[in-house]
Amino acid sequence: MPGIEFFENLKRESNTRMLLLVADGLGGLPLERGGKTELETAITPNLDKLADEGICGVLDPIGPGITPGSGPAHLALFGYDPIRFNVGRGLLAALGVGFPIEPGDVAARINFCTVDDAGLVTDRRAGRIGNDVNRKLVEKLGAISIDGVQVFVKTVKEHRAVVIFRAPDLYDELNDTDPQATGRKPHAIRAKDEQSKKMAGIAAEFVQQASKLLADEHPANMLLLRGFARYEKFITMEEAFGIRCGAIATYPMYRGVAKLAGMNVVDCGPEPEDEVAALKESFASFDFFFMHYKKTDSTGEDGNFDGKVKEIEHLDSLLPDIRALGFDVIAVTGDHSTPAKLKSHSWHPSPLILWSNNERGDGCTRFSETDCATKGGLGRLRSTDLMPIMLANADRLEKFGA
Amino acid sequence: MPGIEFFENLKRESNTRMLLLVADGLGGLPLERGGKTELETAITPNLDKLADEGICGVLDPIGPGITPGSGPAHLALFGYDPIRFNVGRGLLAALGVGFPIEPGDVAARINFCTVDDAGLVTDRRAGRIGNDVNRKLVEKLGAISIDGVQVFVKTVKEHRAVVIFRAPDLYDELNDTDPQATGRKPHAIRAKDEQSKKMAGIAAEFVQQASKLLADEHPANMLLLRGFARYEKFITMEEAFGIRCGAIATYPMYRGVAKLAGMNVVDCGPEPEDEVAALKESFASFDFFFMHYKKTDSTGEDGNFDGKVKEIEHLDSLLPDIRALGFDVIAVTGDHSTPAKLKSHSWHPSPLILWSNNERGDGCTRFSETDCATKGGLGRLRSTDLMPIMLANADRLEKFGA
Repeated sequence: MPGIEFFENLKRESNTRMLLLVADGLGGLPLERGGKTELETAITPNLDKLADEGICGVLDPIGPGITPGSGPAHLALFGYDPIRFNVGRGLLAALGVGFPIEPGDVAARINFCTVDDAGLVTDRRAGRIGNDVNRKLVEKLGAISIDGVQVFVKTVKEHRAVVIFRAPDLYDELNDTDPQATGRKPHAIRAKDEQSKKMAGIAAEFVQQASKLLADEHPANMLLLRGFARYEKFITMEEAFGIRCGAIATYPMYRGVAKLAGMNVVDCGPEPEDEVAALKESFASFDFFFMHYKKTDSTGEDGNFDGKVKEIEHLDSLLPDIRALGFDVIAVTGDHSTPAKLKSHSWHPSPLILWSNNERGDGCTRFSETDCATKGGLGRLRSTDLMPIMLANADRLEKFGA
Repeated sequence: MPGIEFFENLKRESNTRMLLLVADGLGGLPLERGGKTELETAITPNLDKLADEGICGVLDPIGPGITPGSGPAHLALFGYDPIRFNVGRGLLAALGVGFPIEPGDVAARINFCTVDDAGLVTDRRAGRIGNDVNRKLVEKLGAISIDGVQVFVKTVKEHRAVVIFRAPDLYDELNDTDPQATGRKPHAIRAKDEQSKKMAGIAAEFVQQASKLLADEHPANMLLLRGFARYEKFITMEEAFGIRCGAIATYPMYRGVAKLAGMNVVDCGPEPEDEVAALKESFASFDFFFMHYKKTDSTGEDGNFDGKVKEIEHLDSLLPDIRALGFDVIAVTGDHSTPAKLKSHSWHPSPLILWSNNERGDGCTRFSETDCATKGGLGRLRSTDLMPIMLANADRLEKFGA
């Protein structure tokens, strides 16, 4: 498979507009053998019409059997090999709180925890303190000062926060300090390679100052660091594909991942209708839009089958206004599946509709996982295959070779 | 595609049980255009029920159009890239006779042959001598003694045998001595790289001593060596996937390939019913079972269409006892196709049933090559995709990324 750089030499200008509409965790499972999935249960006349007019298929986010996190799942849809462009957990946490990360920054996840007088961890989550306590602790950590380094600490939620270190020459090959069990001391920070030694010294200093600042707190009198990750700038979608990209998402995490791909984040309100309005307002400004629809995933994670059905129906109701904008190419799919039955992300491929005037048809008249898989003209593809197909349909790729 | 090592970081413990039931050479062809394959002709109510309840698809062992040998075809099903984990022919011959091969051993295939007074090969197969003569010659070769090297010679059948060399620092970049035509002298042994020179000297010494021991024999008065192969230890399935694996097979070759993957070979008798009994007895001891059903391949190789149909029906009759054991995940497929029409392995993808409680459905109500290919919800996959899908269904893989 050609990597994303392959397309740099094939990109071609055009006046076409593309929309990638990602319903997070869209794919599902029937609750009982032989039953219907959430998508198959939902009444979706507009998605069905799009499926009927377009061509369908299914997408493996990473590969068959592999359940992805949201970061790699979205990067794959944006055309990035999700294994090669691996985004560390600290970085995703920073993106999740909307922190304006810069290339060269190193981020790590913080867990506030409880230690006893001997320094042994007695609760790795400090009794899951509330967000208010978390914000107070984070404010306190603002006093940390390390020579030549900018340190940013941000609340995530409950016992979780994130720290970002900014200085020249920081690398991320460090162990976690989390001992993964109670009754043990936090691990000391160690660099696993030569170039990460500077970062190891800074992180150790951070932990030492933090332990003093938190000493009198209860129950969160210490912190653990996990998932050090350096932000290496990726080739942008604009560089690779020659398209101006706008991202519309209500959650910081997805705006953050879109920024990794070099997209421009469009301001919008918190509701799906606000996203459609933002799409309309910025329609002239971009060639490609990524619009993220969150609640199909949250209801799936909650195990709320009926709730997920309703969210899919809500999404369906947005389609006419979206289509009225006049896109040349529309793809509707999920980043991964989140079956309510499993209450978690899963490995099942995502159903896909690709709509354009330049595609073949198939027998799919209904947007359904099984119809997409068994009647879909696109067959079973990888998520990374989607961008090239959208670009081709948008007349934005030159011929390869003579 | 992620390699097998990718899963080392994703493996997760669970109490689930998996069965990979491989009907060797299962896939077939209709004898006449528009007719039915062996599988489609067979009456298979139990396999059909499993297909109806499960999700189907087809597997390419190596890639479309590529006909595999049994070694790579099985390794692919076990999750090993069959091109990267290439098992040389000498090694497969050693496994085929059940020789307890050890890492670092170098094995080569022997052909007994006939040479004239000038040393020119007059019959590359020594008139296809019988197995008894073969065993007598092998016994005679037991007198070969090479300083610092253990040499093992084992009968395969007719004019074929196998030799295994055991000593430190043996490598396998040697040419074959087989001139591939009569009227020529056997080639001298030459090392193709520096590190294989020691092995070249040993092999040359072996040939010299063998030629003296065989000089008075008729017609097998010489031997040819082919397919030198060193056994490099593979990462085991237990290491990669975190599962205890049991292998149940009546032929040494398949027990040997299972051992390459680090599986534990379960003792069992020669009949399919013995295999089911072995499965039952060892059910508590392993997380994953590979059960090999041989006769679908042998009848295909013999061009015995009706015989293959009967063997498929025999396999079908075993299903109820197997299902009664209570597996969480069952896959039924072939390692490759062996159409009776072609009397050989073929490139056609293998039909697959995947049965678990965590999969979507499809329209397959009959286990048939064409139904699996055209109605199967899994679509067309590589054999290497099967293990990740089985592991995912058995709740044994963590999410990739956050």
